[in-house]
Amino acid sequence: MQLEVVGQSLERIRQGNPLIHNITNVVVTNFTANGLLALGASPVMAYAKQEVAEMASIAGALVLNMGTLNETEAEAMILAGKSANEHGVPVIFDPVGVGATAYRTATAQKIVEQVKISILRGNAAEIANVIGEKWQIKGVDAAQGNQDVVALAQKAAKQLGTIVAITGKEDVITDGKTLYRIGNGHPILTKVTGTGCLLTSVIGAFAAVESDLLLAGASALVCYGVAAEKAAKKSAEEGPGSFQVQFLNELSAIVEDDVKRMGVVQIEVLEQGG
Amino acid sequence: MQLEVVGQSLERIRQGNPLIHNITNVVVTNFTANGLLALGASPVMAYAKQEVAEMASIAGALVLNMGTLNETEAEAMILAGKSANEHGVPVIFDPVGVGATAYRTATAQKIVEQVKISILRGNAAEIANVIGEKWQIKGVDAAQGNQDVVALAQKAAKQLGTIVAITGKEDVITDGKTLYRIGNGHPILTKVTGTGCLLTSVIGAFAAVESDLLLAGASALVCYGVAAEKAAKKSAEEGPGSFQVQFLNELSAIVEDDVKRMGVVQIEVLEQGG
Amino acid sequence: MQLEVVGQSLERIRQGNPLIHNITNVVVTNFTANGLLALGASPVMAYAKQEVAEMASIAGALVLNMGTLNETEAEAMILAGKSANEHGVPVIFDPVGVGATAYRTATAQKIVEQVKISILRGNAAEIANVIGEKWQIKGVDAAQGNQDVVALAQKAAKQLGTIVAITGKEDVITDGKTLYRIGNGHPILTKVTGTGCLLTSVIGAFAAVESDLLLAGASALVCYGVAAEKAAKKSAEEGPGSFQVQFLNELSAIVEDDVKRMGVVQIEVLEQGG
Repeated sequence: MQLEVVGQSLERIRQGNPLIHNITNVVVTNFTANGLLALGASPVMAYAKQEVAEMASIAGALVLNMGTLNETEAEAMILAGKSANEHGVPVIFDPVGVGATAYRTATAQKIVEQVKISILRGNAAEIANVIGEKWQIKGVDAAQGNQDVVALAQKAAKQLGTIVAITGKEDVITDGKTLYRIGNGHPILTKVTGTGCLLTSVIGAFAAVESDLLLAGASALVCYGVAAEKAAKKSAEEGPGSFQVQFLNELSAIVEDDVKRMGVVQIEVLEQGG
Repeated sequence: MQLEVVGQSLERIRQGNPLIHNITNVVVTNFTANGLLALGASPVMAYAKQEVAEMASIAGALVLNMGTLNETEAEAMILAGKSANEHGVPVIFDPVGVGATAYRTATAQKIVEQVKISILRGNAAEIANVIGEKWQIKGVDAAQGNQDVVALAQKAAKQLGTIVAITGKEDVITDGKTLYRIGNGHPILTKVTGTGCLLTSVIGAFAAVESDLLLAGASALVCYGVAAEKAAKKSAEEGPGSFQVQFLNELSAIVEDDVKRMGVVQIEVLEQGG
Repeated sequence: MQLEVVGQSLERIRQGNPLIHNITNVVVTNFTANGLLALGASPVMAYAKQEVAEMASIAGALVLNMGTLNETEAEAMILAGKSANEHGVPVIFDPVGVGATAYRTATAQKIVEQVKISILRGNAAEIANVIGEKWQIKGVDAAQGNQDVVALAQKAAKQLGTIVAITGKEDVITDGKTLYRIGNGHPILTKVTGTGCLLTSVIGAFAAVESDLLLAGASALVCYGVAAEKAAKKSAEEGPGSFQVQFLNELSAIVEDDVKRMGVVQIEVLEQGG
């Protein structure tokens, strides 16, 4: 992966301030909006069924996150998703906690059936549950198991016809043919709520400015992981409160040079013709 | 403007801890509550149609913010607003993102029709949209255009019979006759979500302790801008995460002397008899 | 009180990462989740009536907080509470702002009638209002009066057949027979929103790992108060923004030794046979 590409996307985000429409959970709205602003994007949260289709149609990307799902919001997600599909707006989906309850599983499956998802992001257990595979889960912060994450990502990508990102100790993203492995990030991310959710929205920001969505997703993962490492270097010993503050600072400060110096990316061809 | 007045209001907020009833969006609830607490006020968030009229009736000010509007909340805003009107409680309205969708525009107009607004605060595009003027808008963080903001504020104030504050690089507030221009503030405010929303609630805190509402609004704008400048001096180079933390510190620390030393205010008579 | 017990519970939280299901208000969701994560627990927020019973049944504790109550949420609290009761999951209830409106009072009373509460936490005014006693209240941040808090706690504990924690300048917790007085904490806690709400969730985390619920509650109060004192020592002079960050750091850093060195606890027998 040419890491200059990440820098170019960053630059486009900061110049163009793409509007990212988030329908997300009540725990992370503030952190998500601040993270997107720090990065250079323009976040908007809009949930009402009366307006989501219109808002999604003018956005650079639509991010759906079912962390604190309810019936009205699920309906709004589908309305917004369909509108995004019609208008060529990429849809990023974060099926938070799918598998934890039957309702979440059913709703996640309904969303992937009714909306064409551009990029699906979750931990391994969540991705497994979206496609009906078995995987152990405890709540929404489940650590990853040792099973074959790459195989799972590829299977999900093919089954759903979408790009799939599975994040954990190592992040992977694939369209089923080409796979990026990203080695950046820091364990303290698991001690701050919403770091997965914000990552999904950051993928949205990159997808708004880079039409090769696999590259956009991989770029977002590298950029996010590098910013986290920079923040951890300055604050991890102080604790998760300080890390959260420093992480917002670093999302604002990160430049191409950081990514080129610190980015850890490997590309694999899973299938010819990718 | 005698800047002692700002100090007196600050003192009254800290002595009396006025109850500020906020019906606001899910992105900024926490930041708004913390900002009001830091300043010395007592925030309460209450949304249920069963209780908003009662809560508004005992508040020092009611703040309506439609950032993440829905049907139930719009109804609650009107119930609360009418109760505030009946009980002589000032109503501050922040029409977040009006103009971004038809639904927001219609709801904002419904609110100003059914509730007597004491002070309306928004950026230029939002204020224009409330009164049906054309203005360019992109999402909720739209930068201000170069058109005549003062003329817009005056027109809105007259058309709605209310005080109008338009914030941006320079802030203006007018009742249609007298205009205050406030030169305080800092660009990094645009990189932290909810700084406009919190400002609207801070106007509520000043309106709860100063019956001259134009003066209350102008005082809030100066105080807020000076606190932002103090915070930026200590943290802007670190980034928006650090600024947000420091800004809460400064809302707590600010005293009359800061305002007198740093406040930048001009008064203009737009129309005699003001 | 043997303060080693607090250290043992802390250790169990960090080893076991108990799932704490919160149905809480929109102001404090993020701070609550971050506080629980910092401490070592696994927070989940789930509100939909379709899933709350299932989520509560697999949780280590259920926390109900009515800070931004509405009809749907009140219904979800009762569904979740009944499920927790059936599955032996402790239920911690925080009746935020009860007494401020008739609706809150009625809802709090409905909840304590329909759900068996394990531990009830509030300030004196809130607890008084739950059991229909008179007490002065102003909003949700009411300072405590001078009436006999211990007598109120004991009365509430007996009337409701539950453990009652009343927090304020001094914290007390009782099952009606044995009383713990905890002298830890710091006044700056009142300048950060959600510190009471997070405390209720932290009580949930301790209740998930310690079956003697009175001991669990007392342990949580000591641990929380000591963490606040440590954070205040490092940040109180800077202001409430810095304190909030530092407090999350300290919830993550606190160990048995801190509690033994700083914990201030007295036990009183209110009634023989306790």
